[in-house]
Amino acid sequence: MQPPLSQPHIQPFFPPQRTLMGPGPSDVYPSVLAACAKPTLGHLDPLFVGMMDEVKQLLQYAFQTRNEMTLAVSAPGSAGMEACFVNLVESGEKVIVCRNGVFGERMRSNVERLGAVAVTVDDDWGKPVDVQKVSDAIKANPDAKFLAFVHAETSTGARSDAKALCALAKEHGLLTIVDTVTALGGIELRVDDWGIDAVYSGSQKCLSCVPGLSPISFSPAAVEKLKTRKSLVQSWFLDQTLVMGYWGNTSGAKRTYHHTAPVNALYALHEALRLLADEGLENAWARHAMLHTELRDGLAALGIEFVVEEKYRLPQLNAVHIPAGVDDAAVRSWLLNDYNLEIGAGLGALAGKAWRIGLMGYGARRENVAVLLGALGEVLK
Amino acid sequence: MQPPLSQPHIQPFFPPQRTLMGPGPSDVYPSVLAACAKPTLGHLDPLFVGMMDEVKQLLQYAFQTRNEMTLAVSAPGSAGMEACFVNLVESGEKVIVCRNGVFGERMRSNVERLGAVAVTVDDDWGKPVDVQKVSDAIKANPDAKFLAFVHAETSTGARSDAKALCALAKEHGLLTIVDTVTALGGIELRVDDWGIDAVYSGSQKCLSCVPGLSPISFSPAAVEKLKTRKSLVQSWFLDQTLVMGYWGNTSGAKRTYHHTAPVNALYALHEALRLLADEGLENAWARHAMLHTELRDGLAALGIEFVVEEKYRLPQLNAVHIPAGVDDAAVRSWLLNDYNLEIGAGLGALAGKAWRIGLMGYGARRENVAVLLGALGEVLK
Repeated sequence: MQPPLSQPHIQPFFPPQRTLMGPGPSDVYPSVLAACAKPTLGHLDPLFVGMMDEVKQLLQYAFQTRNEMTLAVSAPGSAGMEACFVNLVESGEKVIVCRNGVFGERMRSNVERLGAVAVTVDDDWGKPVDVQKVSDAIKANPDAKFLAFVHAETSTGARSDAKALCALAKEHGLLTIVDTVTALGGIELRVDDWGIDAVYSGSQKCLSCVPGLSPISFSPAAVEKLKTRKSLVQSWFLDQTLVMGYWGNTSGAKRTYHHTAPVNALYALHEALRLLADEGLENAWARHAMLHTELRDGLAALGIEFVVEEKYRLPQLNAVHIPAGVDDAAVRSWLLNDYNLEIGAGLGALAGKAWRIGLMGYGARRENVAVLLGALGEVLK
Repeated sequence: MQPPLSQPHIQPFFPPQRTLMGPGPSDVYPSVLAACAKPTLGHLDPLFVGMMDEVKQLLQYAFQTRNEMTLAVSAPGSAGMEACFVNLVESGEKVIVCRNGVFGERMRSNVERLGAVAVTVDDDWGKPVDVQKVSDAIKANPDAKFLAFVHAETSTGARSDAKALCALAKEHGLLTIVDTVTALGGIELRVDDWGIDAVYSGSQKCLSCVPGLSPISFSPAAVEKLKTRKSLVQSWFLDQTLVMGYWGNTSGAKRTYHHTAPVNALYALHEALRLLADEGLENAWARHAMLHTELRDGLAALGIEFVVEEKYRLPQLNAVHIPAGVDDAAVRSWLLNDYNLEIGAGLGALAGKAWRIGLMGYGARRENVAVLLGALGEVLK
């Protein structure tokens, strides 16, 4: 038997103030950070439960949905993704999965782990999902039950036409599962009007909240699929039939314990969503578009080119080619160490070839564009 | 098509300062709350990654383990539970699951959802797991691969003999999966010495951190089982073969992106674990025991009786019988509204019959015992 482990002597951690212009987490609103430190309440405290009702109402606004089943999963966006797949898709069912970046592939992996069948529709990284290819795949797979795709690909900065893809799915009776992790709050998104059945997002992108929560919403058709499934949901933690006993499917219903909610993180989400509602969704979308234009013009002046064709670009996630002869890691370290400025590395197929510059939520401000352009200009000199 | 949802007008949320003496979340240390509001760093920022290394070291101390695979799951304790089962247990494998409260039954549900076989060993609520019954079950099931039990049952306040149960499992070559959600930091727990193979806990109990994280640790034997499994882990989010690429299995290894870590919650965990290390584990255990004695004597003076026999009582979770003729909900509301004092309701078989009084972490203080005894004495008059 070894001796007991002795006490480590660790100092308190004091992180510096960075400007976060990577693919997320984004700059967090000061009042959202302050909300994190408010006194913790019990997860069944009536005052906390009342706040959760407001979070639900605010999420319905942000998603533009009247779905009763709208809530935040108590874990990051990838758990929100898994919550959608694990609750709706059963073993043996067929899902058409569009892959044009990292997150489409992650969807496929989710389908595989359910024992379901993924039919993949592939597009090059940096391109949007090709609607015609999806139409062909649907016709070739009349037994498919779901269409899954990423609205705003965080790995490439490409925007796909969620409205057209959902219309196509509806036409053929498919349920849609849509990744809006980077989309929500940054570009137009209308869950009900577009006919999205299951949608998930993340707290740490255009909502400018701390990382760790994943807003999701299920349409009545998705809820019906969940209620009529033949098998038990394979995840206890993500089983929404249980979670809804806590979040409350109908207002006024008594809350029953499922798991201990991340109380302080939900304070932060409440505040972030409140700020979005105060600004107004359309205003937030317009702000992201405007700042993107300023960034684009400034990058052009530095001779830096975008990965994505102009009409498919996400204003909030700008993937750009690393100029020839430039040391990727050295530049990012220089920006971080000398300017306290974080930009993102390339991911997957774009690793070492691209940078990802985020303009998300509170990060989509004129001063952030200025510091990025000024610092990058100096470093690339 | 319905009109767009208009902006809800929601006010900022200002929770009152409660004294949290339920089953968790417990009172959070002031410096832990303050840590939540520190500036957010990127999840791959070298400074943040360095802090994660410290969290790992602090968790190893708290668990008394030298396990390399020691980290915090980015979700609450029930996700930590699922992380242990989903990574180690495969379809068709047999698990002996001890049930003497809510959380043993949750373990069984996890086993079932894996397509594995649960052999349950039942004890009455409020009793510890009966070691002899477990011994009989192991002998009757020579093909069983795992023994799973709860060290400190949050639903009843009973402590089971984790050391004896693990010794029995080792004798028969079984791997052990142990729930220490309420145990960690509150009572003696020695993961390596006792031979625990997979252990999970929660941030919001005796660590007095905000809710939302689940520390886990896997022994080398558990890691070997994980590495040699025949099937894919059915959860992408909880797949520790992927997560370890981010947390780093060996120190100094490059971190790869898996999911965006809950950065600010990890600041809080770092601070909470740091305070535990500063106090010293044995001192923290002794403090819980001492405050429990004060509470016990005060409750006795009020004529209130414990659910659990003295020698099996958890100092940090005191389940007591609701005195005859007393209105359960009314008393708890009175304490909450007039004294800002939360105690816990009974759960499952104890609903309406018991209260659960927590003395956890920062909540295990003399002033908390005084306010509880004073307020309860007034309310029950």
